[in-house]
Amino acid sequence: MVSSTDATQLRRSGSGDDLLKRFSEGDSRALARVISLVENEASGYRNLLSALYHRTGKARKIGITGSTGAGKSTLVDELAKLLVNQGSALGIIAVDPTSPFTGGALLGDRVRMQDLGAQKGVFIRSMASRGSLGGLAKATREVSMVLDAFGKDFLLIESVGVGQVTLDIAEVVDTTVVVLVPESGDGIQAMKAGLMEIADIFVVNKADREGADRIVTELEAVLDLKRKEDDWSYPVVKTEARKGLGVDLLLDHIRRHGEHLSQTGHLKRRKENLLRAEILQLLSEKVQEDIERRLVQGGGFEDIIADILKGNLDPYRAADQLLEQVKGAET
Amino acid sequence: MVSSTDATQLRRSGSGDDLLKRFSEGDSRALARVISLVENEASGYRNLLSALYHRTGKARKIGITGSTGAGKSTLVDELAKLLVNQGSALGIIAVDPTSPFTGGALLGDRVRMQDLGAQKGVFIRSMASRGSLGGLAKATREVSMVLDAFGKDFLLIESVGVGQVTLDIAEVVDTTVVVLVPESGDGIQAMKAGLMEIADIFVVNKADREGADRIVTELEAVLDLKRKEDDWSYPVVKTEARKGLGVDLLLDHIRRHGEHLSQTGHLKRRKENLLRAEILQLLSEKVQEDIERRLVQGGGFEDIIADILKGNLDPYRAADQLLEQVKGAET
Repeated sequence: MVSSTDATQLRRSGSGDDLLKRFSEGDSRALARVISLVENEASGYRNLLSALYHRTGKARKIGITGSTGAGKSTLVDELAKLLVNQGSALGIIAVDPTSPFTGGALLGDRVRMQDLGAQKGVFIRSMASRGSLGGLAKATREVSMVLDAFGKDFLLIESVGVGQVTLDIAEVVDTTVVVLVPESGDGIQAMKAGLMEIADIFVVNKADREGADRIVTELEAVLDLKRKEDDWSYPVVKTEARKGLGVDLLLDHIRRHGEHLSQTGHLKRRKENLLRAEILQLLSEKVQEDIERRLVQGGGFEDIIADILKGNLDPYRAADQLLEQVKGAET
Repeated sequence: MVSSTDATQLRRSGSGDDLLKRFSEGDSRALARVISLVENEASGYRNLLSALYHRTGKARKIGITGSTGAGKSTLVDELAKLLVNQGSALGIIAVDPTSPFTGGALLGDRVRMQDLGAQKGVFIRSMASRGSLGGLAKATREVSMVLDAFGKDFLLIESVGVGQVTLDIAEVVDTTVVVLVPESGDGIQAMKAGLMEIADIFVVNKADREGADRIVTELEAVLDLKRKEDDWSYPVVKTEARKGLGVDLLLDHIRRHGEHLSQTGHLKRRKENLLRAEILQLLSEKVQEDIERRLVQGGGFEDIIADILKGNLDPYRAADQLLEQVKGAET
């Protein structure tokens, strides 16, 4: 249901029916516009997503994660070139949860991809932390949805491996590729960090460096256990992304993992789980907006703050009281 | 209001009245127990926080943030020694949002602080990313509240500067100290990253290194503008934390900033704003729990998922429908 205010906003921002028409005709400026509206949570963006939803479900979503300096960007570039040469339409999303503070290393790297971006069928978007970190995973999911609806065959979602964000993004994608390097005990680190849980495919990049075989052996030893419990082979691929070596093999494994997901029904289950999480999040956003609007309008909020400051109330009992008020107002 | 289930849970987990009694008598094992219950969001933890709330409001909360390798831990150690020598009771919270992935650098550093932790009146807690990153700021706020209620005079909250988490923690503390180092264009980086907005005091640590004066000059130039708009002096302090140099001066500025906050009414305004955010978050948590319980019990959720998978519905319209159901059930 599009409220009249939302519809007005959408028209005013140059969107609405015309935008959707151009989007469905494959106009890449319309795509960029829709993504901006979604990223900025412009009024009515949920209606846009709602209208686009039935077009989704075709794109294969690949997450590529690993620590800074592991060569993720180079690897993504090389994968992208292969896919473009094979005629695939491609979306690349680079997620940097460490911005704005450590600021822009990943985004800077993207400059060198502009020649790639100029190629037909490749759309590149960088996303830094905005609003909240939970918001970053949400934005990644929504932008992926838009690119999927636009008709992209593959989405490469690159993210710096930082705690929870990495785990959140792993929920969005079909296949997670974890990129390690021979140096710095990266393998041990990955095992400790629970990356074994989310990785479908491991890449040991910069495989010409010392220690590459050691880290592969370490990984294989741990993966042997996992392979016995599961029906997937958890491949470990050695690459030298800078020279393009091993990237075709990686792409083979990515395709094989896609087939595995379809055949075993995992893809369907993943999709269902993602849907549940999405709907709960949407509900929670809506209810929160609802509550905040009522509190601001109702005025009782400031009295409660004053009561707490006087020591007559605490925030926990206050929340209980307000919840009763909100519920009462609905009847 | 303590529901009977919550009360049972609290008793079973060795808490309840006895725990609160020991807590109020200054038993540090009771403190550790309460913090664990809060961190784990054990059943009834909100009632614990509610019961402790009236004891809070005394502790000065100092945030210390900056990039990895800036020497934050050493600086916190030295500040802690000074404060302990002056007879202050102290809580230290080390927040590492980059864990578990890059894993444990900050937490590892903490080992060397154990001799400090053994000192009377110092309580140290490390918090790595768990649940969600938004959850990390929430946990930091709640653990701070518990330490405040326990009677700590100062809380030092150290965090790796990573995007939104840094900004979230800045909301919790009274005074934010941003630690920079001469190398690596840290000053420019800080300006770009919006750290100028949250910093009350700047520290240029490792000030014996080349470039220290340059970064001070850069900072001063930008701060001059800020000082004209504002009534606070935004000091820039040079330290060599490893030798303890400059740390007493930093502590003077921290105390001065505290007085400034009290005199200008900023402290009260900050407290009010924090309260508003806290209550909204509590409400939102409660409503979300409520919704999830109803959806799981109601059973209609799975039908909706099936409808979406069949292509008859999308998640956005589904959320609208469920919201109507939830509201309807309340009347």
